[in-house]
Amino acid sequence: MKIELISIGTELLTGKQNSDSSFIGDALSRINLELSRETTIPDHKKQMTSLLEESLKRADIIITTGGLGPTFDDLTREIVSETLKKKLIFHDSILKKMRKHFQRRGLVMPEINRKQAYVIEGARIIPNNVGTAPGMIIETNEDKKKKTLILLPGPPGELQPMFLKSVLPYLKKYSKSYLKTISFWIAGLSESSVAEKVEPIIEKYREAEKIEFAILVHLSIVEVKLKIRGKNQKEMNEEISPIKKEIKKVLGNNLFSEKTKKLEEAIGNLLLRKRLRLGLAESCTGGLLGNLITDIPGSSCYFQGSIVAYSNEVKKKVLKVRKTLLRKYGAVSKEVALAMASGARKSTKADIGVSITGIAGPSGASREKPVGLVFIGLIYPGERLKIAKEYHFTGNRQNIKYRAVISALDLLRRNL
Amino acid sequence: MKIELISIGTELLTGKQNSDSSFIGDALSRINLELSRETTIPDHKKQMTSLLEESLKRADIIITTGGLGPTFDDLTREIVSETLKKKLIFHDSILKKMRKHFQRRGLVMPEINRKQAYVIEGARIIPNNVGTAPGMIIETNEDKKKKTLILLPGPPGELQPMFLKSVLPYLKKYSKSYLKTISFWIAGLSESSVAEKVEPIIEKYREAEKIEFAILVHLSIVEVKLKIRGKNQKEMNEEISPIKKEIKKVLGNNLFSEKTKKLEEAIGNLLLRKRLRLGLAESCTGGLLGNLITDIPGSSCYFQGSIVAYSNEVKKKVLKVRKTLLRKYGAVSKEVALAMASGARKSTKADIGVSITGIAGPSGASREKPVGLVFIGLIYPGERLKIAKEYHFTGNRQNIKYRAVISALDLLRRNL
Repeated sequence: MKIELISIGTELLTGKQNSDSSFIGDALSRINLELSRETTIPDHKKQMTSLLEESLKRADIIITTGGLGPTFDDLTREIVSETLKKKLIFHDSILKKMRKHFQRRGLVMPEINRKQAYVIEGARIIPNNVGTAPGMIIETNEDKKKKTLILLPGPPGELQPMFLKSVLPYLKKYSKSYLKTISFWIAGLSESSVAEKVEPIIEKYREAEKIEFAILVHLSIVEVKLKIRGKNQKEMNEEISPIKKEIKKVLGNNLFSEKTKKLEEAIGNLLLRKRLRLGLAESCTGGLLGNLITDIPGSSCYFQGSIVAYSNEVKKKVLKVRKTLLRKYGAVSKEVALAMASGARKSTKADIGVSITGIAGPSGASREKPVGLVFIGLIYPGERLKIAKEYHFTGNRQNIKYRAVISALDLLRRNL
Repeated sequence: MKIELISIGTELLTGKQNSDSSFIGDALSRINLELSRETTIPDHKKQMTSLLEESLKRADIIITTGGLGPTFDDLTREIVSETLKKKLIFHDSILKKMRKHFQRRGLVMPEINRKQAYVIEGARIIPNNVGTAPGMIIETNEDKKKKTLILLPGPPGELQPMFLKSVLPYLKKYSKSYLKTISFWIAGLSESSVAEKVEPIIEKYREAEKIEFAILVHLSIVEVKLKIRGKNQKEMNEEISPIKKEIKKVLGNNLFSEKTKKLEEAIGNLLLRKRLRLGLAESCTGGLLGNLITDIPGSSCYFQGSIVAYSNEVKKKVLKVRKTLLRKYGAVSKEVALAMASGARKSTKADIGVSITGIAGPSGASREKPVGLVFIGLIYPGERLKIAKEYHFTGNRQNIKYRAVISALDLLRRNL
């Protein structure tokens, strides 16, 4: 069962926020399916038509995202209709639903949205509860082979719930029960260090050819992924359990989860279990750490808040960092990191205080304090634990911010 | 000149942070070039080889990202070598540079990195100053046609500086001087509202067929993009100037920039020009607004800090929101938004205070206060200006956070 993804839109020319394949690939793996390819093309009719024709030859299931919007450059409906030689049918019920969608927000539906009420003949409609464009599932025959086309809108906020609620249950019938994927999520080790630890195990078990391995990096997080094929669940579990054991042994405390790639989620669970509340003081990261932590639903149970002390005035006024400390050691120093962590704990009334202060660049550096220098502080109540660690990160401003945040989470995790 | 991008990696199966096409497409547009296609495939040898063969038939220039790492599943070097029938040559100078890279960080180079010192015969080496894998530019002939392959590492922090410093200057010779792209960035209007305003202008000028239009959405930001072809710069400017004028007129104050898609950058420039300093109070957005603002280099000139008051305790203790206010109206209310904005201004010693309080969901909602309800407050010194606005956002937790942040920036912009 070959599944291809086609992302339509002028994203090729300009900032696309996220690759759709990331979400769709993840979702498909839950039912043991996988994408064989993702292609992104601009919304030019000729290019879209020839890609669709190519894909129809190669794949059994084609998922498209984008091009279902209301404007003149949204062409997916028309191109699929022409390529499959199926009519577009107007649905009054969709139009009514769209008018209601605008009414709820106190708006009148612009007439150009009317176009979105047209659906390919014979298609199953996927309702869109967030935006206006409905999705479609089309079953058809090309050269006597059964092909399925699934058309979805581009915006992730619409695509994602539609995929989970309607597409995944539909595709379940194609699920191969003999494929299983397992991930190990690692923080605090580089890709090559993880590879050195894991490769002897991989070499040993890869011979069987039932198991595939991959090592992936997500900036500061490394993932070791296994895919195993087998006749049934029991056989696969028997095969995988000694490998899992060996991998866990070599990774040790660097492994932070087998369930989530999000370090902030793993830490949330730890804080919740230990009934500890966290408060932050962020300087160079500007709020990124608080933002990541609050991306996790329910984080209000353990997250008190963050003092983003970008200016020294806020460090002094809110975090009570002493003027003499700032003058003597500078804002980017071990001493100030500790004072900030202590201030974070007190001002947010938390149990644990974590601080980040550093130079994200491109400017602000000196000879003694280069771009990428970051100090992370950690303080427990009654100074039971009091750590300040120095880091040197590479990359651009955003990379340095992200690496600092992941390192702060990892330092916290190792001391919880 | 057809340029295709191939992204290699198991990103198809799991979370890829950003689509490479977004950065590369943007960068190419600066020299008036564009991508005709991006394909992402897993790092399976067979699939990679057949895609490379396909692309060699279709495109003149092929850019690959990923698969240059040190581990067993990094196959780009080998596959390109086999497909083009060119040897891999070991470069001692690259090995030395890699060893130094590890030494600088106080580490010893793992031996598996050795693999990265191999380069395709005849290739021009693109130095990597951030990571270990060098890039390569290979000029070759396939079926008597000149083809160029550009191999780059996957991590954005390595790829991006290499692309800007070495690839873009190399590709400049293919730049078509008769292609020009112009963008208009809009906040505070939906995609369909923008389309309704702009479509009459588009219809009028599209007939000429020298001009292409696109309307793009990036969550809450809408972009109107024009591409114009002409014989020379002067002709293009003459053609474009009446269209620009008309578009700017219908967009009015909703247009926030013709230079940057980043609202936070446009606002930074405004604050800098007016010599005003900004302080924030964030509740449901958890630090995202501060994070976006501090992504802009030089933001320390106008950004004082943010009080992420996730718990009511921080709202009371740091922002001095009165207990009675919280009890009477609740944390998600106009009244508390105003008190938070005032507290933000005072505690960060800023000129302007901006606050966000709302329900990002999925839990925490009530009948009167549904998921997506957000209040944004804005206060100027001496209460010269004092606004609190109610919003209703749709989408998941992250979408609501992002929409709230963009709306706060837009409210600030319209009142600067």
